[in-house]
Amino acid sequence: MSALPAHQLFDPSDPVFRAHLGGKLGVHATSELRDASDLALLYTPGVAQVSRAIAADPALAALYTSRRNTVAVVSDGTAVLGLGAVGPLAAMPVMEGKAVLFKHFADVDAVPVCMQTGTVEEIVEAVVRIAPTYGGINLEDISAPRCFEIERRLQDRLDIPVFHDDQHGTAIVTLAALLNAARVVGKALGELTVVVSGAGAAGVAVSRILVSAGVRDVVVVDSRGVLGPDRLDLPTHKEQLRMVTNPRGVTGTLGDALSGADVLIGVSGGTVPERDLMRMAPRAVIFALANPDPEVHPATAARFAEVVATGRSDFPNQINNVLAFPGIFRGALDSGARRITEEMKLAAARAIARLVEEPTPDRVVPSVFDERVAPAVAEAVSALVDRDGVS
Amino acid sequence: MSALPAHQLFDPSDPVFRAHLGGKLGVHATSELRDASDLALLYTPGVAQVSRAIAADPALAALYTSRRNTVAVVSDGTAVLGLGAVGPLAAMPVMEGKAVLFKHFADVDAVPVCMQTGTVEEIVEAVVRIAPTYGGINLEDISAPRCFEIERRLQDRLDIPVFHDDQHGTAIVTLAALLNAARVVGKALGELTVVVSGAGAAGVAVSRILVSAGVRDVVVVDSRGVLGPDRLDLPTHKEQLRMVTNPRGVTGTLGDALSGADVLIGVSGGTVPERDLMRMAPRAVIFALANPDPEVHPATAARFAEVVATGRSDFPNQINNVLAFPGIFRGALDSGARRITEEMKLAAARAIARLVEEPTPDRVVPSVFDERVAPAVAEAVSALVDRDGVS
Repeated sequence: MSALPAHQLFDPSDPVFRAHLGGKLGVHATSELRDASDLALLYTPGVAQVSRAIAADPALAALYTSRRNTVAVVSDGTAVLGLGAVGPLAAMPVMEGKAVLFKHFADVDAVPVCMQTGTVEEIVEAVVRIAPTYGGINLEDISAPRCFEIERRLQDRLDIPVFHDDQHGTAIVTLAALLNAARVVGKALGELTVVVSGAGAAGVAVSRILVSAGVRDVVVVDSRGVLGPDRLDLPTHKEQLRMVTNPRGVTGTLGDALSGADVLIGVSGGTVPERDLMRMAPRAVIFALANPDPEVHPATAARFAEVVATGRSDFPNQINNVLAFPGIFRGALDSGARRITEEMKLAAARAIARLVEEPTPDRVVPSVFDERVAPAVAEAVSALVDRDGVS
Repeated sequence: MSALPAHQLFDPSDPVFRAHLGGKLGVHATSELRDASDLALLYTPGVAQVSRAIAADPALAALYTSRRNTVAVVSDGTAVLGLGAVGPLAAMPVMEGKAVLFKHFADVDAVPVCMQTGTVEEIVEAVVRIAPTYGGINLEDISAPRCFEIERRLQDRLDIPVFHDDQHGTAIVTLAALLNAARVVGKALGELTVVVSGAGAAGVAVSRILVSAGVRDVVVVDSRGVLGPDRLDLPTHKEQLRMVTNPRGVTGTLGDALSGADVLIGVSGGTVPERDLMRMAPRAVIFALANPDPEVHPATAARFAEVVATGRSDFPNQINNVLAFPGIFRGALDSGARRITEEMKLAAARAIARLVEEPTPDRVVPSVFDERVAPAVAEAVSALVDRDGVS
């Protein structure tokens, strides 16, 4: 992150700071407290009846407590936006912003839970401890590779959905965009050669969902080159990723991987030189998703690709997690899903893609303000729960 | 708690259950999200400026995040109302109700944090881990003696107020009521002989605040009798309490302690027989605070005492924590207090008592709906912070 001194980072007259003054979230009661009889209903002595009933039948908590509609947005501030390990206090504005989006797009009551940074074990224990309060856990901005193990262990121990949005939100929306981009360039999804640049949280999840969706040729590249058979001392998560990708056994640089590739998906925050892009196949697709600076400027990318997408709102085809996470949790809360399965993520991606009836190079995903998106995603998730029982 | 089967405890048509359907709390954004430019201010890319500024100067979190006005209502469900250890899910309606009161009376955004029950160490670790999210911690319905050590250790480790309301809220309001009751019966506070029946969370805190306020003769009684010199194997918290109370070295039963006593404060949930009340001094004071069933019915108590108070809203003189905790946290949040000191508690009690200009036997505390109370308490807390610097 920036090494500027505090006074150069802080300008109270800046519209951003004015919009943040006092924080971005409030809590309210859902019914009125006017007099002693309201007090007797909402608090003592009335509340004791509800507590007793839930103690006798814990399933009633899903109907008679705020757990029904509340998701914790949990971060330890170790990988906040592009800023890195800024810590839990500096993560607060981001988690509050996420909660604002949850409310706006899907009427989910989300609350930030910013944790002091700790070991995987410590974070897992704290989340398990507080989990009875919530109907779901959205993990956010937790550094890789810790995020993978934290998510897996929480999913094992909790019976509510645990969803690391930096992984799966990004993966779902990227797949949605690729489904439509493939139609635009007239190539079958299963036949695409896809290069994923970046093997962090987003890179891992994007690669995995593409494989799940039927893309047979995914090659992942990290800062040291292709995850290929010559990479002997990979950390566990990259080794596991290599085992399900790179069927041709490609080795070498990003440029080598891009030779003849149909699709480049950048989730690295690095840059990709033109001489590498030049090696891509005709009618290529480039998703340069790093924020705020895409791996390649969209205007440059357009010289080498027919479809270009970024994470930014000021260019066409914004690949933004907000297309996925509100509807994912809306569907999970409404249907009582105990986990977000791989199949639900695929169904969510297809639901998002379907909302663009006629994909064009400039329109492979719906607008983030398209009000049909969250209900469609929620419906896709719920349908699988209803079919399979509570997953 | 009740051993009735679930279906006899749960009646969805009951007004209490109807008032609880869907939970009692919601979250909202404090500014509007209408379009892409709002999104850019409240979330990416704008939010990164605020995160960067807080990372450089953590004090800015008190201005630009919801931490400024948010209190966690933390319980592990081990001592919920009179119900006992009903667990975190069944504690939720109570903690939500508490949050409703925080909002209504003092515009504090409170959120429940219901934890799986654990050891003192586990609860402390979890609260410390999530503390960066909040401006204060209200501990609630945690069993004694665990509550004492949990509170003390959290106060040592955190630089935000940690306040166990079952102890200190009760103690503050009880002291307020006693200040006025002493005026009604024409006795000086320092000269009173006070018997506290119950040595749980409330009994310990009430006894301690009375001693701090200048009551010289406090005798505490638990289920086995007076905490006197003959009680050789007391647990630590009771031994510590005995050392600061009972200057006359009283021994024996509750009846023995009440012999000639000016004040009985019941915080035990037991019952007190008439033959014991009969032994009290003339112009006695009885606070029978157990809920929903006072230790002695107010009509019976009135035959032995000039001033009678209970915890109930359907009798005069309701001693209710809601007179204290909203204002305590309002004052602490507004003034940046890092802890709630003994002096703040005394000042809060005096502020509450002063709002009753002319105390009478039927009016020793203000109404819980008296809108002057929370501001007066907040003011009393803030004044001490302003005087002493951030405490």
